[in-house]
Amino acid sequence: MAQLMEDEVFLAFSTYATIVILKMMLMGPMTGYFRFTRGAFANEEDVVGKPEEEKKKMLRSNSDVERVRRCHQNDLENIIPFIVVGLLYALTGPDLSTALLNFRVFAGSRICHTIAYVTPLPQPSRGLSWMVGMGITFSMAYRVISTALYL
Amino acid sequence: MAQLMEDEVFLAFSTYATIVILKMMLMGPMTGYFRFTRGAFANEEDVVGKPEEEKKKMLRSNSDVERVRRCHQNDLENIIPFIVVGLLYALTGPDLSTALLNFRVFAGSRICHTIAYVTPLPQPSRGLSWMVGMGITFSMAYRVISTALYL
Amino acid sequence: MAQLMEDEVFLAFSTYATIVILKMMLMGPMTGYFRFTRGAFANEEDVVGKPEEEKKKMLRSNSDVERVRRCHQNDLENIIPFIVVGLLYALTGPDLSTALLNFRVFAGSRICHTIAYVTPLPQPSRGLSWMVGMGITFSMAYRVISTALYL
Repeated sequence: MAQLMEDEVFLAFSTYATIVILKMMLMGPMTGYFRFTRGAFANEEDVVGKPEEEKKKMLRSNSDVERVRRCHQNDLENIIPFIVVGLLYALTGPDLSTALLNFRVFAGSRICHTIAYVTPLPQPSRGLSWMVGMGITFSMAYRVISTALYL
Repeated sequence: MAQLMEDEVFLAFSTYATIVILKMMLMGPMTGYFRFTRGAFANEEDVVGKPEEEKKKMLRSNSDVERVRRCHQNDLENIIPFIVVGLLYALTGPDLSTALLNFRVFAGSRICHTIAYVTPLPQPSRGLSWMVGMGITFSMAYRVISTALYL
Repeated sequence: MAQLMEDEVFLAFSTYATIVILKMMLMGPMTGYFRFTRGAFANEEDVVGKPEEEKKKMLRSNSDVERVRRCHQNDLENIIPFIVVGLLYALTGPDLSTALLNFRVFAGSRICHTIAYVTPLPQPSRGLSWMVGMGITFSMAYRVISTALYL
């Protein structure tokens, strides 16, 4: 048990995995915040007690809310693969410095991606930060496949 | 290999992780069930062989189907972070009783969330069960970060 | 650390988990490809510099893009449970041949699912490949629960 947590690469993985997961989880409350401030809800039971006309308005979709939800979705599509591949990568025993570089660049790229998406910043800032994250995950997947291939 | 599975905290994590994952997976067939009973499909190839007019009707979105899909999406956004953080948390060697409490409350909160979402029950039942689950994951993430910080 | 990677079942899990994750990640660039060729974007900042009229057209949703996105979403809903359950399953020490069979059939079923979804092939090819994948994950979950139950 404790063995895994004595390995520095695994410790680094735990730290950065937790950081990017926390970042992803913050998109949930942020969606809620935008839903309340923009008055745009998805469920009938969330607008109970309002007059009929206002209800209809509040159940329409709002572009700011949709933007945060797309950002959240993009996180799901990119951060979870990073965590799965990163866990296996950490178990292949890479150099600590290479592993740290991978984890740090990935975490940075996802934070940049969120800022670029939610602000929004002009392209290609969002596209580039997405690509850097993808590249890191692919390079770690390459190491996993080349070290641990067992078909 | 067997070592991890001899640790009681890890066993408890395995059990509850499997329970919440199975709960999440059941949303898939439930979406299918609502799609068939409500006659609301997303793909052309699912309504082949029906008369043209009925086809169009069957390709519209349905509020019950959308509700189940939002619930499924919320599961993805909350259960997966719980599993990632819970795995790392289990490896930090917490007290068995504290860990069990965390896992049990989380599993309960997500089951309540699903019932509150799909029925639907009046608010704040859904909001509260969502918040309890978030709180558990954040508290476990706090322990991971404070035990295993390696930036 | 190295212990896990010396276990053949875990090596096989790592290989197939990486394969299905890579398959899932490829849906991201594929969505991008369809967005560019079909001229259907989701964000204002992606269509900057086009004439006003064309902009509006390019921000509509496109049925091919939506199809790829539904396929990606289905991957998230099925591949991630497989990876979580498969990891725990690999730790319960199953027979190598049974484990390999499970992993291979799952990977095959998801590749068939993607082809059936994106082409699209007539039903029930998509439905069947989805069900095979679900069945594999459920059977592995059954083994995890029956080996490692700790409520």
